[in-house]
Amino acid sequence: MDAFPDPHPIGTDRPGSGSPVRVYEVGPRDGLQAEDVIVPTATKVDFIRRLVDSGLTTVEATSFVAPKWVPQLADAAEVMAQIKDIQAVRFPVLVPNAKGLHRALAASGVHEVAVFVSATESFARSNLGTTMTGALELAAPVIAAALAAGLRVRGYVSMCFGDPWEGRVPIDQPVRVARSLLDAGAQTISMGDTIGVGTAGHVLDLVAGMTDAGIGPEKIALHFHDTYGQALANVIAGLSAGVREFDASAGGLGGCPYAKSATGNLATEDLVWLLHGLGIDTGIDLAALVRTSVWMAGQLGRPAPSRVVQAMAKAG
Amino acid sequence: MDAFPDPHPIGTDRPGSGSPVRVYEVGPRDGLQAEDVIVPTATKVDFIRRLVDSGLTTVEATSFVAPKWVPQLADAAEVMAQIKDIQAVRFPVLVPNAKGLHRALAASGVHEVAVFVSATESFARSNLGTTMTGALELAAPVIAAALAAGLRVRGYVSMCFGDPWEGRVPIDQPVRVARSLLDAGAQTISMGDTIGVGTAGHVLDLVAGMTDAGIGPEKIALHFHDTYGQALANVIAGLSAGVREFDASAGGLGGCPYAKSATGNLATEDLVWLLHGLGIDTGIDLAALVRTSVWMAGQLGRPAPSRVVQAMAKAG
Repeated sequence: MDAFPDPHPIGTDRPGSGSPVRVYEVGPRDGLQAEDVIVPTATKVDFIRRLVDSGLTTVEATSFVAPKWVPQLADAAEVMAQIKDIQAVRFPVLVPNAKGLHRALAASGVHEVAVFVSATESFARSNLGTTMTGALELAAPVIAAALAAGLRVRGYVSMCFGDPWEGRVPIDQPVRVARSLLDAGAQTISMGDTIGVGTAGHVLDLVAGMTDAGIGPEKIALHFHDTYGQALANVIAGLSAGVREFDASAGGLGGCPYAKSATGNLATEDLVWLLHGLGIDTGIDLAALVRTSVWMAGQLGRPAPSRVVQAMAKAG
Repeated sequence: MDAFPDPHPIGTDRPGSGSPVRVYEVGPRDGLQAEDVIVPTATKVDFIRRLVDSGLTTVEATSFVAPKWVPQLADAAEVMAQIKDIQAVRFPVLVPNAKGLHRALAASGVHEVAVFVSATESFARSNLGTTMTGALELAAPVIAAALAAGLRVRGYVSMCFGDPWEGRVPIDQPVRVARSLLDAGAQTISMGDTIGVGTAGHVLDLVAGMTDAGIGPEKIALHFHDTYGQALANVIAGLSAGVREFDASAGGLGGCPYAKSATGNLATEDLVWLLHGLGIDTGIDLAALVRTSVWMAGQLGRPAPSRVVQAMAKAG
């Protein structure tokens, strides 16, 4: 089946055609943080370099989270130091709080940070140890300080579609939170379907709700998980609503069904297969990306969850 | 997470809204034929009854294929006899050739048959032991005889998107074959992505090509496999092009990664989750369908591949 290294489109009259799409790679951060086995810094750096070599231009490289919470990413500063020579690639890093931003500012090569807030009270309480408002109040000065230091800022909103405790999340909650992050100075907001329960219809509603609140699709990124197999269908909905930035994790890293902390991250390869099939050039060499994910899976000692990686690896 | 027995939509301005969609269940035929372990007739009948009880109104019940080729479905006549009391449900059966039709006509309860042809020469040769033209020449008299007996006829076209030997399949090949089947009297044509390499863009091209050939979307069903994770994205593309019939297999039966003969059938539950999220009422009770698939997986001694089944079963 190596007659399918990458699908090529015939026409151009389709969602998203004629307009670039940014693939925002989260594997080294969102993917690896779900892995129990500590990956050596050199392997992380090698992973990032391979991702860049396969054509990715935005790679969330690490998180300046407290090492006691995520030991996997305790080497954040070291990772950033070792990739600072790479040109023309954005390497945003997550900063969960002011202390994280402080560490990020002290590290080399940090030009862009991302902050996290919640669209539900339950998740704010359980994951962030605060309230929705509290999370925003914590994020606002971090954003302000980051902007003052000349950094670019992305806001992540978690649980935008559903929440394990509260069920379906009303549209106005994530919209209000996104609005607050933008007002605080964030340039882009990534709307996360943290537990993967969103559907294409819900995506259309959310983007429409954001538009009503004055948040155009150019400010929006979408972050889907494949828990219910809907991630790519949701991407199509997002594309048709004008969104042009999607988060994904190489190989589906972090979404491994064998990992306790599996989140079902949308695999970058599955996303790229879709986009290329729609005639959207991402600049990504899919075969090279698959080789990278197969290599990384080897480092982790188990197969990559991505269906495209599995199918292309099987095809040889 | 049982706050998500089934997603409910807010708005209606979305692909496919306001127009019914037929879920064409293929689990008992396409799913079971991929299983090596012979399932008792009583279990098959129980499976079909449970599928009907969960709201499915079209269930491809079995195949009158030669038992030496597919021992699993050797009990086709017995299965049909045991479900003939079920009212208001369509139970099409596959008939691979004139002999199969003869057996189907001799059985009770057969009102609808399906025939198979190929969109590529390689698959016609390897799977059907003939040429593309030869397969059509075999199918035409079967269709004519079925129509003469008052049956409804569905045509399946295999390898409409890609083929393991020939690579990407030019649009005109499946279109020409579909045109021939319709001319021969078939009422609906199911266009199959047998190896799951199609993408949303390719789906739009194919449906456009069929429209150009005078085949409207009301004549078209789409049959996707999830090999590259694209099945639901492809469904959305089909919906947006006006197609209103989609094949799927309960629990993803036949798509089990543990089975040698895995085909990656789109799971009915994953499809229903998408459709309900788009505000399209299928009349299917998703929770009941998931229970059916969990029960059937128990009969087969392994988990259902469907992501929705896995997620809902985990949620309890």
